[in-house]
Amino acid sequence: MAGALTRADAEAADARDPLAPFRDRFVIAGETIYLDGNSLGRLPVATRDRLAAMAAEWGEQLVRGWHDWIDAPARAGDLLAPIVGARPGEVVVCDSTTVNLYKLVSAAIDARAPRTLVTSPDNFPTDRYVLEGLARQRGLAFRLDDEVRPGDLAVISHVAYRSGELLDLAGIQAAAQDATIVWDLCHSAGAVPVNLHEAGAELAVGCTYKYLNAGPGAPAFLYVAEERQPELRSPIWGWFGQRDQFAMERPYDPEPGIGRFLAGTPNILAVAAVEEGAKLTAAAGIDALRAKSIALTERIVALHDAWLVPLGFSLETPRDPARRGSHVAIRHDEAWQASAALIERADVVPDFRGPDTIRLGVAPLYIRHVDVHDAMQRLRDLVALGAHRELPAARGRVT
Amino acid sequence: MAGALTRADAEAADARDPLAPFRDRFVIAGETIYLDGNSLGRLPVATRDRLAAMAAEWGEQLVRGWHDWIDAPARAGDLLAPIVGARPGEVVVCDSTTVNLYKLVSAAIDARAPRTLVTSPDNFPTDRYVLEGLARQRGLAFRLDDEVRPGDLAVISHVAYRSGELLDLAGIQAAAQDATIVWDLCHSAGAVPVNLHEAGAELAVGCTYKYLNAGPGAPAFLYVAEERQPELRSPIWGWFGQRDQFAMERPYDPEPGIGRFLAGTPNILAVAAVEEGAKLTAAAGIDALRAKSIALTERIVALHDAWLVPLGFSLETPRDPARRGSHVAIRHDEAWQASAALIERADVVPDFRGPDTIRLGVAPLYIRHVDVHDAMQRLRDLVALGAHRELPAARGRVT
Repeated sequence: MAGALTRADAEAADARDPLAPFRDRFVIAGETIYLDGNSLGRLPVATRDRLAAMAAEWGEQLVRGWHDWIDAPARAGDLLAPIVGARPGEVVVCDSTTVNLYKLVSAAIDARAPRTLVTSPDNFPTDRYVLEGLARQRGLAFRLDDEVRPGDLAVISHVAYRSGELLDLAGIQAAAQDATIVWDLCHSAGAVPVNLHEAGAELAVGCTYKYLNAGPGAPAFLYVAEERQPELRSPIWGWFGQRDQFAMERPYDPEPGIGRFLAGTPNILAVAAVEEGAKLTAAAGIDALRAKSIALTERIVALHDAWLVPLGFSLETPRDPARRGSHVAIRHDEAWQASAALIERADVVPDFRGPDTIRLGVAPLYIRHVDVHDAMQRLRDLVALGAHRELPAARGRVT
Repeated sequence: MAGALTRADAEAADARDPLAPFRDRFVIAGETIYLDGNSLGRLPVATRDRLAAMAAEWGEQLVRGWHDWIDAPARAGDLLAPIVGARPGEVVVCDSTTVNLYKLVSAAIDARAPRTLVTSPDNFPTDRYVLEGLARQRGLAFRLDDEVRPGDLAVISHVAYRSGELLDLAGIQAAAQDATIVWDLCHSAGAVPVNLHEAGAELAVGCTYKYLNAGPGAPAFLYVAEERQPELRSPIWGWFGQRDQFAMERPYDPEPGIGRFLAGTPNILAVAAVEEGAKLTAAAGIDALRAKSIALTERIVALHDAWLVPLGFSLETPRDPARRGSHVAIRHDEAWQASAALIERADVVPDFRGPDTIRLGVAPLYIRHVDVHDAMQRLRDLVALGAHRELPAARGRVT
């Protein structure tokens, strides 16, 4: 990997990158190197234009717009479906990841009567909280554990939010014979191939504001395998999940398909942004995105080993690219200061996670090899010079 | 009211209308008379511009934007608070009305152990469905009833979605000594004065896409009286409701204030649209809006009596303006055909609700007296001539 240490090599890699033109499909002002697309993706040009068009559509169509908008959550879901290996009618866009997780876990509790709700102690907080809350509400046990046992209902992140570790979704699903798994795809949708149907996955949720670039707090998605849909019912009975929604005088009778997991009125402008993000990802192709993502994280690992290990850094992300998502986590005792210095002195935006982790996300639609090279070089130089220690100590945390 | 029957009188009323200039603060293209702002409000100019600015902010600030965005749900809530008679810190903007109703009813079940969940048979379907679902989930009785009895947990619409009847919120709240009431303000927020705090109301939800003009499927709001906040806990434990949100390694421990009712990541562009809508309503003033709304519905009633009663119409909305929200419901055996004819032949958009009701909504920020006059005249002429019967019969329902 010696060649990978030079900027010339990074430039050459960019020159032969088939996805390079996609960078121009984002609004990019200034020279900031943005390595936090794993937290909030960039604004696509098409999304900026679509949001303006949707506002105009609201202004002109008014209530008549619902004739078309009513199907937007399912339409956006069908655009996402191939990105996560689902079939048409298995994905719908609505609510937040948290609310969707609540709906699916609650539905699975009713249908499967698990003994214990389980998630990894390293899983994202909202996943833990949702399970804790449902365990209390339903009188079930709750366990923080990386293992799944028979009788468990487990929420598992396909890519771990902190370490970036990519799990073997198909293998874990196949092994979980007497357990129910809800997959959290927040850090994998749009970044790594996900083969929900092929793997026999039953349930999944995910967010669209990271690698799918749908904007801050964009609506999430949920997936329910077609075969499982009839037996599962959302705990939140709402009018957008009702069969024949506008025949209003009947008791609740949910839609037969994925629409039964909708609750209230979906935000139409926000769903349109998800559509644009999904289209962009589909146009690039998930396999090409994955290949570029691996090349970029491999470059980070090589530069880390050569430049940062001597400065006290260590790698938190698996070294095997097959076990890695699209961000690399590195540890350092002064990670917080180094992260702040990168932002304030080097025009690089990484992501700090307490107590000692810097995450470097490489969204392959718009991150270049030279971005990775320059960011790593600036981090090396700041820390080698001790410049990160010169910042005011009592600063608020960057989140 | 004889003078109220002439177009000259309508023009004179518009000429002395102190809110007349507010119409120019909306994007209004063409001559359509839009009497369905009670379903979906119009696009404010400021909102169109703010949405574009927020997209630019996302594009430029990227993840750093969260420094400001993180407080947006509470900030928008504080803008809405005076509009519904709440104090700062009692309202937050998040999720949909359905999800918010689910959260508050579920929290109140835990805190109050009601025997029965109750709502009017005439209430909006999603309210009924949420209660039906929670009754089933928690093993409680469910009753469709206009009466509230001791031990009930009732969801009551302040203004009825169909008839437009405005209830006496303070009187009902005062009488409900041993019951819990969750107020549904969907059809009153921004249209009629709501005095939640003064009335001693404990819980409320409402939507922002009707009289608050925040766009199709805009996020809803919820209200919890400050004194009640500590005892109530959302069933959906999410990371936006967590105290010290970014200290991620602790068990769930909800925010002390209204923030505990947040769940997942809020949609920032959508919340910004709520802010703009709330600002516009606050600028006009709820008392001025109410005075104009009454003048407009009085005109509809007078024209209805003079012109439509002879054609077989009848009034579904209370005749006393003090008992009326901001829409008037009229009945006719051929209401569906008359409604379709208004849209297709007369460039008037009313709202049809099966089987026989036409709702005429008068959003006082942008509806003029001449709009009401012209719409009623066109309806009269269409039905008097039988023109509404000439439309194809097997048309899809306008929703």
